[in-house]
Amino acid sequence: MENPVLAEVTRGNTVESRHRGSVLVVDADGGVVFSSGDVERPVFPRSAVKAIQALPLFESGAADRYGLTEAEIALAVASHSGEPLHAETSLAMLGKAGRDAGCLECGAHWPMNEAAARAIARAGAEPSALNNNCSGKHAGFVCLACGLDEDPAGYVGAGHAVQQAVRGALEGVTGAAHTSDLMGTDGCSIPSYAVPLKALALGFARLGTGHGLGPERAKAAARIRKAVAAHPFMVAGTGRFDTRAMEQLRERAFIKTGAEGVYCGALPELGYGIALKCDDGAGRAAEVVMAALIARFLPLNEAQATAFAPLRESVLKNWNGIEVGRVRAAGL
Amino acid sequence: MENPVLAEVTRGNTVESRHRGSVLVVDADGGVVFSSGDVERPVFPRSAVKAIQALPLFESGAADRYGLTEAEIALAVASHSGEPLHAETSLAMLGKAGRDAGCLECGAHWPMNEAAARAIARAGAEPSALNNNCSGKHAGFVCLACGLDEDPAGYVGAGHAVQQAVRGALEGVTGAAHTSDLMGTDGCSIPSYAVPLKALALGFARLGTGHGLGPERAKAAARIRKAVAAHPFMVAGTGRFDTRAMEQLRERAFIKTGAEGVYCGALPELGYGIALKCDDGAGRAAEVVMAALIARFLPLNEAQATAFAPLRESVLKNWNGIEVGRVRAAGL
Repeated sequence: MENPVLAEVTRGNTVESRHRGSVLVVDADGGVVFSSGDVERPVFPRSAVKAIQALPLFESGAADRYGLTEAEIALAVASHSGEPLHAETSLAMLGKAGRDAGCLECGAHWPMNEAAARAIARAGAEPSALNNNCSGKHAGFVCLACGLDEDPAGYVGAGHAVQQAVRGALEGVTGAAHTSDLMGTDGCSIPSYAVPLKALALGFARLGTGHGLGPERAKAAARIRKAVAAHPFMVAGTGRFDTRAMEQLRERAFIKTGAEGVYCGALPELGYGIALKCDDGAGRAAEVVMAALIARFLPLNEAQATAFAPLRESVLKNWNGIEVGRVRAAGL
Repeated sequence: MENPVLAEVTRGNTVESRHRGSVLVVDADGGVVFSSGDVERPVFPRSAVKAIQALPLFESGAADRYGLTEAEIALAVASHSGEPLHAETSLAMLGKAGRDAGCLECGAHWPMNEAAARAIARAGAEPSALNNNCSGKHAGFVCLACGLDEDPAGYVGAGHAVQQAVRGALEGVTGAAHTSDLMGTDGCSIPSYAVPLKALALGFARLGTGHGLGPERAKAAARIRKAVAAHPFMVAGTGRFDTRAMEQLRERAFIKTGAEGVYCGALPELGYGIALKCDDGAGRAAEVVMAALIARFLPLNEAQATAFAPLRESVLKNWNGIEVGRVRAAGL
């Protein structure tokens, strides 16, 4: 089965590149609202499910024990750009559990944000694990381990209590078995499990509504959504799609990008969960597709629609700042 | 018509992403050696045709008038990584025509090579147009303008004598009309024209053999091939696919990457020309597909095959240096 073209990239008046993929939108009972392409094939959600991976941080009581702030909670579910505020906030989270950056097992990389990377280089320094886009999630994992009175060392391993709890939350929320045959290793070294889009879309409908989660988990999900809506900078960073979209929409949309062209989201007022995967892993396509889905389902006033337009169709400029093409959703 | 999957990206034991596209291999008469997918649809070759765009530099006599070296000729057909030697060589080319970096109209960007970019930032400096991956091509354009006794100013415009000569070379070598309705603006601001893969493959078969080019053009093509084979670093840079492949194969393969998943190449001893386009624009896929085609057609001894293996299947490592997956050609 061929997946349809979801996004096109133009140059001049010609379509230069095409991105195929699949999309599913469901309600909180799993009823299909919109479906395109193969939604049964297992896909690695990667960072798109960080909000689900953070649920044990609340359910264990660790978030309250260490008094995590809303900004810290938003960072715990982030793929951030490694800007100074992100790195400082990760360090503060670790400090609350009596730990430091030496506990992080995500590896170091240069900040995704160009200016932040240049600033580190200009200072003659090197990036640390705090600059890793997953450092907030990992700081949360360290807090979870400490909250469980477990040694954080080795917390990225599939057998560690932290990853067992994370896997339990993923299975509970999505309803899909997370099996070792469909396990891979993520960029930050934790396990990632491939599951069908229909499980991811249902999971996000549940995250957005609390339906089917049980009272404690529903409360934790609501806290995460509220924290991200209040601090959309923390979940991504300067100029990033997630940040720009949620600065506009706040609690009306809870969305999260994942590597390799995955995007998940919840539209709480409609009770909808969204999951999509671009077959080729293209983030530029996943973004405009998510924007098109939000604009299709969520009523926007004129000011919101205007502010949202550049997210729906992104302009490609060359090194002289000349517009050379566009990335836009197709067939949605 | 659906194009086939040309490359797969794995994570653990699962295929995470898939890249579709089309491929054509022809002989110097245009006879089809291998064909997969739609080879009639116009595609922008982008930087893959820089060697064709450089032909007027020789045919005008400018290359000899300014005494361009083999390293400079290789740089004139490069998409280089902006490393110090690339930038210095661009400047030297401009100097030979009595010009400097102020004449370049390609725009500035940070070097593609991470270390080179960090070094500029560490020095508290900013990148210049010399670091633009196209600066060698543009230095060649400036030399061409001066060689034609034309003012270089505005040489990126479709109406300038330089771009008229370039377009003439493209039409002559590929046999395809380069029409304004299929014109777009490239990253470095010159016109790019979408033409079918079959024209690009034929053009590269001609570049690799000289057949069908006329004696002067065939001689220029041979000089370019020889220069690149002698200086594969100049055409790309540290760790880059073109450089690594041609360091192994030298004059046996003349290949050139283009943006948005295009690759073109010539295998002179077989008389073959190759052109491929990944629909989604993915360079990671285009590389392994080109490697698979070379390995399929070109007899390699054991040492060459071993050295070539990592180009055919590239290993993906995460931030801790752990192998998490592979990129490999499919169905070739």
